[in-house]
Amino acid sequence: MSELKQKIMSSVSHDLDSIEDALKQNLKPHLDLVATVAGHILFSGGKRLRPLLMVISARLCGYQGSYDKPFAAIFEYLHAATLLHDDLVDDAALRRGKSAAHTVWDNPTAVLVGDFLLARSLVLAAETGLPELIKVIAEITEDMSQGEIQQLSKKGDPGLTETEYLEIIHRKTAVLFQGACLAGALLAGADKISAKALAQYGLNLGMAFQMADDLLDYTIDTSAIGKNVGADLKEGKLTLPVIFALKSADSFDKQKMLKIIKDQNFNFVDFCSLIDLLNKYDGIDYTKQCAARYIKQAKKALMIFKPGKIIDIFLDIADYSLVRKL
Amino acid sequence: MSELKQKIMSSVSHDLDSIEDALKQNLKPHLDLVATVAGHILFSGGKRLRPLLMVISARLCGYQGSYDKPFAAIFEYLHAATLLHDDLVDDAALRRGKSAAHTVWDNPTAVLVGDFLLARSLVLAAETGLPELIKVIAEITEDMSQGEIQQLSKKGDPGLTETEYLEIIHRKTAVLFQGACLAGALLAGADKISAKALAQYGLNLGMAFQMADDLLDYTIDTSAIGKNVGADLKEGKLTLPVIFALKSADSFDKQKMLKIIKDQNFNFVDFCSLIDLLNKYDGIDYTKQCAARYIKQAKKALMIFKPGKIIDIFLDIADYSLVRKL
Repeated sequence: MSELKQKIMSSVSHDLDSIEDALKQNLKPHLDLVATVAGHILFSGGKRLRPLLMVISARLCGYQGSYDKPFAAIFEYLHAATLLHDDLVDDAALRRGKSAAHTVWDNPTAVLVGDFLLARSLVLAAETGLPELIKVIAEITEDMSQGEIQQLSKKGDPGLTETEYLEIIHRKTAVLFQGACLAGALLAGADKISAKALAQYGLNLGMAFQMADDLLDYTIDTSAIGKNVGADLKEGKLTLPVIFALKSADSFDKQKMLKIIKDQNFNFVDFCSLIDLLNKYDGIDYTKQCAARYIKQAKKALMIFKPGKIIDIFLDIADYSLVRKL
Repeated sequence: MSELKQKIMSSVSHDLDSIEDALKQNLKPHLDLVATVAGHILFSGGKRLRPLLMVISARLCGYQGSYDKPFAAIFEYLHAATLLHDDLVDDAALRRGKSAAHTVWDNPTAVLVGDFLLARSLVLAAETGLPELIKVIAEITEDMSQGEIQQLSKKGDPGLTETEYLEIIHRKTAVLFQGACLAGALLAGADKISAKALAQYGLNLGMAFQMADDLLDYTIDTSAIGKNVGADLKEGKLTLPVIFALKSADSFDKQKMLKIIKDQNFNFVDFCSLIDLLNKYDGIDYTKQCAARYIKQAKKALMIFKPGKIIDIFLDIADYSLVRKL
């Protein structure tokens, strides 16, 4: 474990334990099958970053009640629901090094248990009794589905622009980070300025987080991320490293890249030569710089708060999102 | 059109027009693909019964505002979302005489547009600003997913009991009818007794509605219902006519029925001989009687209200649900 990760973990280990409990306590399915399938995705080594963001956001805004962890489960259930559906949509074989749920069971089961988790998160949201918070959660769900649909409609399209890519990751990833931070502020009854600042932090962190995630697909070390080599590309997902390199490459190299991208059965050697081209045309570096810029914005948003232990956790999480290996 | 249907339609034609408008106005997708796929299922001749129940429930409780139709769209979006997912789960070819969305597009698109409609209905629910109403909608969604999962887990199981069948149709169908009526009452700020009575009406109507729907599968006249002959059975769905007949049949006839049920490629002659056995062992009649009993309960629940034009519509809808042909 990196030093930074260790530092974060030791600051929030108690919170993470409580979140883990809340995830178990609030699932409440009527059927064993739901518990098994939901458990397969929920308890498979997720980082619990989204619920954690809600918990520390509430704390930063002075929340002292005991509902932060149960309500934080909203964000992990919502996240798990989208993973179940997205893995089916992408026909992904692996998730966190385990077989994806739709391959262990089947598509119908993955669809319906995903629906259950989505509904469960909205029931929890409704239990807050805070219409503004509920609306945030419902709108996140709407945005995420549209982000996924947009991604699906651009599947395998080498003409995907950087602007479209940013729109997609904003909807499919960043809004959930933004919502988790904002929900913490709303639960704490924070003033508008604090709520807005936390939402800005979450949004920018989410953008950087997805870019870093997309970069991981080009690190080759599959055992670490628990996915197959070049999984994104095989699923027809063009991400920023590729989009930028395609735009910058000369005609000869561009054709070479397009050939690999279009051939979904590319082998390891093809993939390595693609990575070489991504490096040659600065696709990797450019993506790293973009992610770093979003992290800078995320940190800047927090400047309205007094420095202290909680702010340090936010800043460490921001830094960690750029260097994480899984 | 039957006389009863004509009577209902003339009483609510203005409401139905406004609901149709609300369904178009409130969809608001970012992407053309979402509009097209959602439109395929939303504007394909649905009866709009669920939103109508909310509108007339609100009116019965004295609602005079103008948000009844927009908020009633919640129930049609939710219904459409579950149809998209259920048709995929059941691998159904037809829906209302048209090709099911997952066959026109693909499974991923049907999953994600279903998610969008589910989310859209919850965003609308959140816009009511009424936490109690929002909770009703979220819990409906949770119940419906669990009803579908329970049905899936019992797929093709000839040991399905009447109690399990009742649990399944309660969750997958009746809670939505119940919720639509209850939501109307909540929107109108009705007293608890009125709200409970309307919820009881909806619940019982929903049970009867699903039983009548299940009976339609054994009427052979496919052109009317827009599905294939014996579609339920081919999807492994055992419904009350079959459950009751299997329980009552002698050993010889039971084996004959089980053979047809297990052979998903049964032909028209097999299906007709199954219907003969359902009639011989009163499966059809028993189901009709059960549905009629639920309708009696539905009507009884409304006895706390003063008789009048609106109550007549509720009573007509109850009667219609037993005799409808599609």
